Amino acid sequence: MLSINGTRLMERIHALGEIGKDAEGRRTRLAASDAEKEGRDLVAGWIREADLELVVDRIGNMFGIWQTEENRLEKPLMIGSHIDTVINAGQYDGCLGVIGGIEVIKTLRDAGIRTARPVVVGAFTNEEGVRYSPDMMGSLVYAGGMAVDEALATVGTDGTVLGEELKRTGYEGTVQPGFLQPEAFVELHIEQGPIMDVENVKIGAVENLQGIHWQRVTIQGAANHAGTTPTALRADAGLAAAKVNVFLRQLVEKSGGVATVGTIRLEPNAINVIPSGAVFTVDLRNPDKAKLEADEKALAGYFNELEQSDHVKISTERLTEFDPVLFDQGIVRTIEQAAAARGLSCRRMTSGAGQDAQMLARICPTAMIFVPSIGGISHNPREYTRDEDAVAGANVFLDVVRELAGGSY
Amino acid sequence: MLSINGTRLMERIHALGEIGKDAEGRRTRLAASDAEKEGRDLVAGWIREADLELVVDRIGNMFGIWQTEENRLEKPLMIGSHIDTVINAGQYDGCLGVIGGIEVIKTLRDAGIRTARPVVVGAFTNEEGVRYSPDMMGSLVYAGGMAVDEALATVGTDGTVLGEELKRTGYEGTVQPGFLQPEAFVELHIEQGPIMDVENVKIGAVENLQGIHWQRVTIQGAANHAGTTPTALRADAGLAAAKVNVFLRQLVEKSGGVATVGTIRLEPNAINVIPSGAVFTVDLRNPDKAKLEADEKALAGYFNELEQSDHVKISTERLTEFDPVLFDQGIVRTIEQAAAARGLSCRRMTSGAGQDAQMLARICPTAMIFVPSIGGISHNPREYTRDEDAVAGANVFLDVVRELAGGSY
Repeated sequence: MLSINGTRLMERIHALGEIGKDAEGRRTRLAASDAEKEGRDLVAGWIREADLELVVDRIGNMFGIWQTEENRLEKPLMIGSHIDTVINAGQYDGCLGVIGGIEVIKTLRDAGIRTARPVVVGAFTNEEGVRYSPDMMGSLVYAGGMAVDEALATVGTDGTVLGEELKRTGYEGTVQPGFLQPEAFVELHIEQGPIMDVENVKIGAVENLQGIHWQRVTIQGAANHAGTTPTALRADAGLAAAKVNVFLRQLVEKSGGVATVGTIRLEPNAINVIPSGAVFTVDLRNPDKAKLEADEKALAGYFNELEQSDHVKISTERLTEFDPVLFDQGIVRTIEQAAAARGLSCRRMTSGAGQDAQMLARICPTAMIFVPSIGGISHNPREYTRDEDAVAGANVFLDVVRELAGGSY
Repeated sequence: MLSINGTRLMERIHALGEIGKDAEGRRTRLAASDAEKEGRDLVAGWIREADLELVVDRIGNMFGIWQTEENRLEKPLMIGSHIDTVINAGQYDGCLGVIGGIEVIKTLRDAGIRTARPVVVGAFTNEEGVRYSPDMMGSLVYAGGMAVDEALATVGTDGTVLGEELKRTGYEGTVQPGFLQPEAFVELHIEQGPIMDVENVKIGAVENLQGIHWQRVTIQGAANHAGTTPTALRADAGLAAAKVNVFLRQLVEKSGGVATVGTIRLEPNAINVIPSGAVFTVDLRNPDKAKLEADEKALAGYFNELEQSDHVKISTERLTEFDPVLFDQGIVRTIEQAAAARGLSCRRMTSGAGQDAQMLARICPTAMIFVPSIGGISHNPREYTRDEDAVAGANVFLDVVRELAGGSY
């Protein structure tokens, strides 16, 4: 049974992981930064070393194209992920999918296998969205969901313009995003959650991706003395915000989604003053669009109740809205079969996080392969996937790519 | 019926209220600041103008002493309050009691009344506790609850030392705090709460003062991805903090106390990260010591429950603990009778806020007279008491002082 070179895979993950350490030793490769350029240069070297054609499109997506005279008129199978990171990141998120993709193509090629269609590995620009908004920008633009000129004009949190930074770092290409129409897309990624670790499952066949709704909620009450204001005469914005948090948990326990109040700010934020204001965010997710919308409607109804019961005013602002994504059942089954053939435990998964694959799913059949994240830790230097699990995932990836690209002919 | 000069009372309140406006026009006279010195100078002038003996003690408490050859061996009746303010303060809090006290003595004196005992009006140092901690410091030291040298060595939020600032501004006296043992103490003050305004009551006969317990609560959970972490595997410190806030409201609705979570900080405070930490304050008050302690015990029990149910660790730190104070029933009845004699509606009140009177209550029979605060607003430039209500309160104050100091002889 053909297998990837696990030692080389892990060496390359660690080599890329060394790039972008800041003064405090934190691994940070924000999109189109000097540190990310250094990472791109390393990956570009591996692409060339695998004898792939390196193409960079206008939004900076990098591709390594493996095609032959015989298959170059076929629509390619596309694989890949991203190599930009959050601040103080781990080394697996995104990188496993890009490096694993190069490894898979190199393994097939070195084995003398000739596929029925081209295989293209991509590293998409600005998946994390830390420096430039929105996240998953490169794959969004590639899939036609955002105009390339609009994306290039994006001003970052540091005041820079994405297009200028891509040019400065040498990764503004000339090819139009979307220049290759994929036959299908497959992404290998760490779970970034604890489910597979807790259940000791080795392969996740990702069949869908949660819809994500973000709102900023502002509750206005009245600042009054914490000692002299009787309970009945209070309009406590902080208490109302607390009730929302408790309500949200009850809501998603019924709907099967997840909800998080990750940020809050109270005004005036003094020990002995009843909060006049509470501003907080609600991150609401559900793989089922109807349930997500029903939860959000129930939340809006609860806001109306609170305005009456707690004498407050509540306003909301939409920050992000991604619909749930259904992946391709055929590819999901191919992943399950590949895992079974290698004797690896496998379960169907929902991606809780946003992924480049959700953008590619707009233009072609798509699915993802997950490998376990120990403790579910991600976006953190302690992000960790066991070597054996990463390698096992890359081997399933290899088998799936070989299957989807068509056997030798 | 003898009455104070209402026009002069209000003119003086407004004159003192003009002092200490900062660059943004906010009224701020922090203890022992240049602005407060200017206020002290104005008040000292009124004390001298009323022919009272001005005495400043070592902690900077200012007194205007009215005694005669006939009564100087009797224990004095003490009245008064404070003239330091919070940041961006109103003009009534504290000042009404000091200026009203001077006005009462001047009125009695000008009317040729000779009391059986001396009457002393005091302005106590650092009641607000904004620049130097603890609050009510001057009256606490006066009542023997804190050593004067310890108080003088207090380092402020701005790095200054209270003793040095009192010396610099000319209000470090040489007399030992507690040099006069009062027969009784009475303080006129605005309610700083909404009850009298809502109920349209003109005089509050304050019979007790809530106990105040402040804690800082730290909840430790686990930071995880808001999308990829199933509800069952979360340790959401922010949600646990929210539950505490909701629990507290239910608790005090039964016990008759009040509870406030005025401050909170989440870590890492990111939209899509489950909070790993929540640090917040709990301000818990009750006029009944047993109920206050029972509530606090119930809260501690709830923390234990939460540690189990929510997979978090909770620790608490005591910030402030003042027992409830019972005022003197005899003085309270005297206030009620004085209000009735003037045809003013009156109700017994609990002081929700801390007051200088609670410190004096340690060494002599004490009570307070409240006048309404419109909308309950205090510690705010919109703090307002109608002229007629302030004057009515000062006239009741006059009658009570005349009664307690003994009639003419």
